[in-house]
Amino acid sequence: MSATAPATTGPVLADDVPATMRASVLLRQGEVEMQERPVPTPPPGEVLVRVRSVGVCGSDVHYYKEGRIGDFVVEQPLILGHEVSGVIAGVGEGVDPSRIGERVAVEPQRPCRTCRQCTTGHLNLCPDMKFYATPPIDGTFCDYVTAPAEFAFPIPDAISDHAGALLEPFSVGMWAVGKAGLAPGSRVLIAGAGPIGALTAIAARSYGATEIIVSDPVASRREQILGFGATSAVDPLDPGFDPAALGVDAFIECSGATPALLAGLKALRPGGTAVMVGLGAETMPIPVQEVMNKEIVLTGIFRYVDTWPKVIAAAQAPGVDLDALVTAEFPLEEAEAALTQVPGESSLKTIVVVSR
Amino acid sequence: MSATAPATTGPVLADDVPATMRASVLLRQGEVEMQERPVPTPPPGEVLVRVRSVGVCGSDVHYYKEGRIGDFVVEQPLILGHEVSGVIAGVGEGVDPSRIGERVAVEPQRPCRTCRQCTTGHLNLCPDMKFYATPPIDGTFCDYVTAPAEFAFPIPDAISDHAGALLEPFSVGMWAVGKAGLAPGSRVLIAGAGPIGALTAIAARSYGATEIIVSDPVASRREQILGFGATSAVDPLDPGFDPAALGVDAFIECSGATPALLAGLKALRPGGTAVMVGLGAETMPIPVQEVMNKEIVLTGIFRYVDTWPKVIAAAQAPGVDLDALVTAEFPLEEAEAALTQVPGESSLKTIVVVSR
Amino acid sequence: MSATAPATTGPVLADDVPATMRASVLLRQGEVEMQERPVPTPPPGEVLVRVRSVGVCGSDVHYYKEGRIGDFVVEQPLILGHEVSGVIAGVGEGVDPSRIGERVAVEPQRPCRTCRQCTTGHLNLCPDMKFYATPPIDGTFCDYVTAPAEFAFPIPDAISDHAGALLEPFSVGMWAVGKAGLAPGSRVLIAGAGPIGALTAIAARSYGATEIIVSDPVASRREQILGFGATSAVDPLDPGFDPAALGVDAFIECSGATPALLAGLKALRPGGTAVMVGLGAETMPIPVQEVMNKEIVLTGIFRYVDTWPKVIAAAQAPGVDLDALVTAEFPLEEAEAALTQVPGESSLKTIVVVSR
Amino acid sequence: MSATAPATTGPVLADDVPATMRASVLLRQGEVEMQERPVPTPPPGEVLVRVRSVGVCGSDVHYYKEGRIGDFVVEQPLILGHEVSGVIAGVGEGVDPSRIGERVAVEPQRPCRTCRQCTTGHLNLCPDMKFYATPPIDGTFCDYVTAPAEFAFPIPDAISDHAGALLEPFSVGMWAVGKAGLAPGSRVLIAGAGPIGALTAIAARSYGATEIIVSDPVASRREQILGFGATSAVDPLDPGFDPAALGVDAFIECSGATPALLAGLKALRPGGTAVMVGLGAETMPIPVQEVMNKEIVLTGIFRYVDTWPKVIAAAQAPGVDLDALVTAEFPLEEAEAALTQVPGESSLKTIVVVSR
Repeated sequence: MSATAPATTGPVLADDVPATMRASVLLRQGEVEMQERPVPTPPPGEVLVRVRSVGVCGSDVHYYKEGRIGDFVVEQPLILGHEVSGVIAGVGEGVDPSRIGERVAVEPQRPCRTCRQCTTGHLNLCPDMKFYATPPIDGTFCDYVTAPAEFAFPIPDAISDHAGALLEPFSVGMWAVGKAGLAPGSRVLIAGAGPIGALTAIAARSYGATEIIVSDPVASRREQILGFGATSAVDPLDPGFDPAALGVDAFIECSGATPALLAGLKALRPGGTAVMVGLGAETMPIPVQEVMNKEIVLTGIFRYVDTWPKVIAAAQAPGVDLDALVTAEFPLEEAEAALTQVPGESSLKTIVVVSR
Repeated sequence: MSATAPATTGPVLADDVPATMRASVLLRQGEVEMQERPVPTPPPGEVLVRVRSVGVCGSDVHYYKEGRIGDFVVEQPLILGHEVSGVIAGVGEGVDPSRIGERVAVEPQRPCRTCRQCTTGHLNLCPDMKFYATPPIDGTFCDYVTAPAEFAFPIPDAISDHAGALLEPFSVGMWAVGKAGLAPGSRVLIAGAGPIGALTAIAARSYGATEIIVSDPVASRREQILGFGATSAVDPLDPGFDPAALGVDAFIECSGATPALLAGLKALRPGGTAVMVGLGAETMPIPVQEVMNKEIVLTGIFRYVDTWPKVIAAAQAPGVDLDALVTAEFPLEEAEAALTQVPGESSLKTIVVVSR
Repeated sequence: MSATAPATTGPVLADDVPATMRASVLLRQGEVEMQERPVPTPPPGEVLVRVRSVGVCGSDVHYYKEGRIGDFVVEQPLILGHEVSGVIAGVGEGVDPSRIGERVAVEPQRPCRTCRQCTTGHLNLCPDMKFYATPPIDGTFCDYVTAPAEFAFPIPDAISDHAGALLEPFSVGMWAVGKAGLAPGSRVLIAGAGPIGALTAIAARSYGATEIIVSDPVASRREQILGFGATSAVDPLDPGFDPAALGVDAFIECSGATPALLAGLKALRPGGTAVMVGLGAETMPIPVQEVMNKEIVLTGIFRYVDTWPKVIAAAQAPGVDLDALVTAEFPLEEAEAALTQVPGESSLKTIVVVSR
Repeated sequence: MSATAPATTGPVLADDVPATMRASVLLRQGEVEMQERPVPTPPPGEVLVRVRSVGVCGSDVHYYKEGRIGDFVVEQPLILGHEVSGVIAGVGEGVDPSRIGERVAVEPQRPCRTCRQCTTGHLNLCPDMKFYATPPIDGTFCDYVTAPAEFAFPIPDAISDHAGALLEPFSVGMWAVGKAGLAPGSRVLIAGAGPIGALTAIAARSYGATEIIVSDPVASRREQILGFGATSAVDPLDPGFDPAALGVDAFIECSGATPALLAGLKALRPGGTAVMVGLGAETMPIPVQEVMNKEIVLTGIFRYVDTWPKVIAAAQAPGVDLDALVTAEFPLEEAEAALTQVPGESSLKTIVVVSR
């Protein structure tokens, strides 16, 4: 916040903010309940957001079905959801109250701001991060959430509520593409034509990449991805597919499949970069001598830093249509159905509509 | 060349290569003469190119009018021209003869390949560089030239002969944009709406820059530039133009005007980058304390490295039309007229047509 | 602070912290007065430091003599001093009280932590920075100061109180050297053999630079600098000094003298980097064509980011003796004398001793 | 070579260069024979080097014992050896004959110079590289070898012949450390206290790293490494060794042992870098989720670029003694013994003395 902005000395709320709200709560593995919860009060430096659209992420489904992801365990009731757009309905101390009414997309991070990672540009690696829907921090399957004021990014009319929610997974793709170092003339292979693969392909296009090859074993997904940034789509199970012949500058793994990672490493030219995005096995048998001989850089991503300005810009570029990724909608009361639906072959993103 | 490619053990020429050729020769400052010259023989590792289109660069005009640029002095007859496309008409020892007939755009550099700059990725800074039309090295206002085989880049049908010649100034813009570090979401100010400003704006668009503001005092050029990548155009002489209010991520100076550079430094946000491309005064009064206080990076470019793959890709992107920059054509015999014409306000690039 | 550290729920002070303290206050340009001031209470996340040693910086002298530096004007009484070591005497809410008693060196920055510069690793460029002794923020010529807990760095016994204070100007040199990109084999020219030049030379040695040439017109300073990291010292006024013959990888300007900057740009090899540290004229006549032809990177520094871990390490390296830079000491009551003394040719750093 | 240097128009040899020379030739796996071979003639741009010292590398031993390394197979008689110092005994066309008599260390690479890797600063990744003792290119276990003139680096008296030969493995360590991004304050873990581990530790010290921890299961090697740059040595088999507690900035794997790589990845802080140097299993089970969650950069090295200037500088730094790594010497006639000796626990480098 600029030094000269008018600022509150205590929370200011819109007139229509109620005392309580609806929340879809994961009680424990496989059990969701609608509850009445108090509307939170925005602390100093934060805003209160009236939630509109929330994207359903694979991690939400995973917490629902397994009750945990790695070391993060659902040990108490948890509100899921972290891909979110909405409207500012209140501000905490120190935040300009004229922001009330602003349509925003929310970066779902609350870093500590004081550790060495936070002070050196790597807040995504903050060991004390609070992140929506990562136990024990509640997420956004509810009417109101709070967020740091500077992480509630204003969005223009050209970005719909649904698209605003999708800026979070789009940020994942954008961060991955940034690490991959794409530029005009670059050739990239992306494994997986699901929602993250599609958003990564769009991000690759945004960075000026020239050849964007997406691999997926499902024919309908290969066809679909050509509408989302890919310049070509290949079947990794096709006997004629020879990754070593590709010699791409970068490979971005968005499927979580071990064979996809191994094919991608083969596909890289010497000096190329591989970025892991998709979650799969904890351990994979990596051809380390090939990594050495080609001086490959193998890395992965964990959330993102400073991507909202990039995705807000890229979402409005000609030919980009995030709304086209939405293949299902559920009202908040049916959030559990959104988590349990069996996705079709061409399913991409499901949105939980909290309000409009 | 790959180890397995078929290769010649001596020069191989196309059947129709004559013994002599036409050349437009700058005898001395202000005096050009058409001459009959022997067609050069491609040395080992090089190709012979039948020239088609040659762009006229400000440096060509400068050598014609002043007889020198800085320390480079025209002390003997010199063939001008270095922005060139053509067709491979012969190959030297070690080059695959099947390349004869290939349409190519030529990167006009002949670095020594063994100095520390050459072996560490900075061949443009090679102290022993031979560069077309930089005294005493002959350029391309003639029927045939030789070039290192790997610097004769095949171009597809989608790139016309004229556009192929313009890949050289496009490389200047691409190299500048690369140094400026543009990406989706970036905001850049470009000073000067001439041909280099236009090609820089197109390059900025290729890298995904979101806001591309071009400044130029001439109204018709401001209007014209909106068709070449700019998202807006401003008049630097407008009393309402306040560069300090812009806070752009990068500034690229393509006008050579001292006030433009000073305005651009004001326009940068803290941590921004300024890249000087346009030639103007040898010395400019730089606000060094502002450079320090904002930790601005101020740099400039000298030719380019590895830009042809980028510009060949970018030239084929949707919405990019290099041919639209061509505002005049002259046959080789009238090269002097091409150098002496008085450009109109909306003139961009002049092409000397050597063959079609 | 780690999530598991014991932390206070309100300020905790050492038993011997008094209610009031001594402070040397600059009332206005050229007028200093000792005052009794209340000891500050550490806010949440901060510590209270019992000040021991404070280095006198050129900026302190400048504020005393001129009442301003650029846009920063002394409009109300101001405590000077920002190079500081001491002992933690209290902690604010959320800070581990076991830190009381820790000897620390203080990074004198208080960034906003929420702006885009702060969240992306450039906190030194935060537009809302509060910095000791930069109007209107009080500095450290007093018994107690507060500081963000994570910016009070523990120092080992091997670093004296005086050396602890000098970690601040050492950080300036370290940050400059970091921007210069020095490594084993690098050759660097440093202009100015004063305290910042000396600390920059030591920092260059820390980064492994092989040849560290310092220029200074004063013979005794050239001799002295050989004990502080320089491998050779040259007289810039010597008619035989030909900077263009040096071809160094980097140049660091620590004198503020315009001719020194111009000589340094000449001394750079193509592709070299120039970093401006010393304050001099607001504007300097820069040879922009040379910057372009050599693709020089010209930049400057403004404070620093994450340098204390580096300088704490480097201060303990064999052969490094920061205490040797201290050429004068004054007690707090004589802070004005410290500001007005006429430095001798070999003077380097003056320390105001607040306590021991 | 500069454009103005006097240069030959054909080879020039020292008076004492004979027509034939001794060569230790690997006939096939496990069989070495001394042969009489013609002394090679230096081609244009190259020098002829009278070999003095040649280090024995693990790859030499591997070719001797296994007849292959990966895809590189000994299919015809091969001269081993690629770590080499000597004296220039002749020059090819274009090389200054005054270089005859120069003591040199040779960078054993002959890149193609024209591929995209070579022209963009990655000559080590050139697909057409010719490298001493990599089949079918002969190495340096013989009296004379040729090398590109600019890859024969003059060495000062302070670097012995043996040390000159060790600049090649020192380059391996320097290149690895460069990729690891070490600087003052950095903490690095190095796995393996053999010769490459030792040279890597020295290189880490050269770059200013503050904490250099070397792990090795052999006690005598742990003790020995403290004399070669390590600040501490740990036993990876010690039950009390908890790599995850280290949180180092970088990890450099010099042992080839899979458990060492896995421990090193655990030891990295979030955002850390792992560089693989040691050859071991072709494939290793990498904890990819940990790589992602910590955004680790995992890479490896393949030879080096532009390291000789760095290692020549670093070899002369105070406290660096490359000669101390030499633990055995053999004359050229006993090269096979050098390849078959059973190294003791404290063996580091063996030198084949070709001449003195």
